[in-house]
Amino acid sequence: MTAELISPRFPRVSAAAGADAGQAIRFGNLRPLALDGGSSLAPLTIAFKTYGTLNATKSNAVLVCHALTGDQFAGSPHPLTGKPGWWELMIGPGRPIDTDRFFVLCPNVIGGCMGTTGPADIDPATGEPYGLSFPLITIRDMVRTQAMLLDVLQIEKILCVLGGSMGGMQALQWAASFPGRVVSAVPIAAAARHSAQNIAFHEVGRQAIMADPDWKNGAYGRTGAGPVKGLAVARMAAHITYLSEAALQRKFGRTLQNRESFSFGFGPDFQIESYLRHQGSSFVDRFDANSYLYITRAMDYFDLAADHGGILAQAFRGSRTRFCIVSFSSDWLFPTAENKRVAHALNAAAANVSFVEIVTDHGHDAFLLDEPQLFASVRGFLASVASQAGVA
Amino acid sequence: MTAELISPRFPRVSAAAGADAGQAIRFGNLRPLALDGGSSLAPLTIAFKTYGTLNATKSNAVLVCHALTGDQFAGSPHPLTGKPGWWELMIGPGRPIDTDRFFVLCPNVIGGCMGTTGPADIDPATGEPYGLSFPLITIRDMVRTQAMLLDVLQIEKILCVLGGSMGGMQALQWAASFPGRVVSAVPIAAAARHSAQNIAFHEVGRQAIMADPDWKNGAYGRTGAGPVKGLAVARMAAHITYLSEAALQRKFGRTLQNRESFSFGFGPDFQIESYLRHQGSSFVDRFDANSYLYITRAMDYFDLAADHGGILAQAFRGSRTRFCIVSFSSDWLFPTAENKRVAHALNAAAANVSFVEIVTDHGHDAFLLDEPQLFASVRGFLASVASQAGVA
Repeated sequence: MTAELISPRFPRVSAAAGADAGQAIRFGNLRPLALDGGSSLAPLTIAFKTYGTLNATKSNAVLVCHALTGDQFAGSPHPLTGKPGWWELMIGPGRPIDTDRFFVLCPNVIGGCMGTTGPADIDPATGEPYGLSFPLITIRDMVRTQAMLLDVLQIEKILCVLGGSMGGMQALQWAASFPGRVVSAVPIAAAARHSAQNIAFHEVGRQAIMADPDWKNGAYGRTGAGPVKGLAVARMAAHITYLSEAALQRKFGRTLQNRESFSFGFGPDFQIESYLRHQGSSFVDRFDANSYLYITRAMDYFDLAADHGGILAQAFRGSRTRFCIVSFSSDWLFPTAENKRVAHALNAAAANVSFVEIVTDHGHDAFLLDEPQLFASVRGFLASVASQAGVA
Repeated sequence: MTAELISPRFPRVSAAAGADAGQAIRFGNLRPLALDGGSSLAPLTIAFKTYGTLNATKSNAVLVCHALTGDQFAGSPHPLTGKPGWWELMIGPGRPIDTDRFFVLCPNVIGGCMGTTGPADIDPATGEPYGLSFPLITIRDMVRTQAMLLDVLQIEKILCVLGGSMGGMQALQWAASFPGRVVSAVPIAAAARHSAQNIAFHEVGRQAIMADPDWKNGAYGRTGAGPVKGLAVARMAAHITYLSEAALQRKFGRTLQNRESFSFGFGPDFQIESYLRHQGSSFVDRFDANSYLYITRAMDYFDLAADHGGILAQAFRGSRTRFCIVSFSSDWLFPTAENKRVAHALNAAAANVSFVEIVTDHGHDAFLLDEPQLFASVRGFLASVASQAGVA
């Protein structure tokens, strides 16, 4: 047996009692995953969560790909934090991705820390957590892993692959790697390559983690707290880039936190400081620092054009996939210009593409928020694709 | 004697032999500095550097205020690093701030680490470095300190106060605090308040420093290395904000550093990573981590309008100072909109103000770079002001 269905295990924390922890497929040593970096990985577990029901013809599968710090709990509460799923506004009965109609599959990416094999898992060669002996991974490796999962589930074609940010990178990679398996793709707030500025911010985060002596060159183990201070700093820096200057000014401005005047000290005088510190400290409770290193690196390495002789259109040559590219006007991390670049390349490849820029001041994180125009776009696009594909 | 001229001493490092280390004025216990935070500071040393010659009527003094990580070595080589002064393109014989005509005075700010009293100096009460027992300081405290220096030098009026970034904040504060002493002011790439986003980035830097166990709650002493890893991370994060996305893409893009393909590791594969790491590691050799905490805090606290009933124009009511406000089109840290806000307030106060936005992709750091339009603006404005004031 090369693959078996198991209950997922989360390497650093346990799921709350009664929480729906989803499922996992474990591939044994007979089915190693060949990685872009040259090595291969076995055994491999892929944790995932599904919503809705796969129809008899298996034609209603929608693949949802998560972002850097996301996971498979897109449409249901997170089993560790108890918080709503990160895309509950998008996924559910009657929602834009309507689970009364579609079968939604959301896997945790390879390198992650929510049940899919990653650096916090035990290396069978040593009996210790992989740490830095875990192989580097790429966006294409994530997509390959997901294809293995679909194979086991005997789903040949996906009606639509959707995702925001790194999820959108995966959607683009899916269309490029497996054009015959992808009926449609909705990359949201994404790009076909990671920019110099984005690599720079990721490098700051990695250096913050690696500067923390509790990181121990990645060998902080399964039980220790790990480099929580460094990881919190990394998260704080990243979080600023997910918002827009206008939204920060509107939400926080220079408002003080529970005080009338400055403390003349280094405590969190301003609400924005208090908010950022909270973002940092709550993040470390649910995320693994080494996973953060590996997944940011995968994003940095992403450059679809480079894999196709430097010409992005070549990545989509002859594609029959329908694309809907979505950007947000105030997103400075994956700005509209980068999304338009993808749309132009798809046009150059004579692919079927529509493009929408949504005007909002919510910045990059708009893909996670209550954005009616985003919901309308996804709903309309999916309805059209489903009807064309004869999905009831 | 309340003040005496001394040779400056740099708390953490010594000047290279033969280097011009500038001068310093030491105020004794009879002349304490009253601070915005409520405490007072004595003794107090103000280190400074001058260029050019003060004329007989003392009417040709130009005050240059430095930015967060700048110092008094604006127009001459830095005595510790040996590198050119940060504004050598601007200051010198025949330069926009022409030292054949003007007497340029550039003091190190209070809280700094280049000879003016700061947290790395010895607290006379304990015989140990101040560390966190150093009082919090504000932009207004910096300006007060500079006024004390001018008093000692018996310079009643300054022909012009100029500075970029935090230097521009000081220029605005000078005009607000001492309107009778400031003939003209040139705030460059500045703002009348620190924005939520800017506070957020500063807080990330501070948390990076404080997360470093070598910070030791500020008590790392005069000889230890101090929190060099945390300070380097802080500098890396800040450095990204000083540049523009376009410039990063143009200069670095996704170019690899001395390699043909990815390492599939966490070394600096990309040039931008290597560049950032260098920015971090070279910074820690010349800057004190506690000074970084104190000075970023002073910037965060800056809000000229708040000191005047929330109405920025009130800060400049009745002002006879001539202003030239300069912004850079690609500066997202102190964007044109913030600079325009200052110009509008000056208009509302019926002050004499001109405003110029310089189109460049160099981002915030443009004020330090070869920007011909900046040089032309400063040269022309100074010539006009000098001629109006009868300076030969």
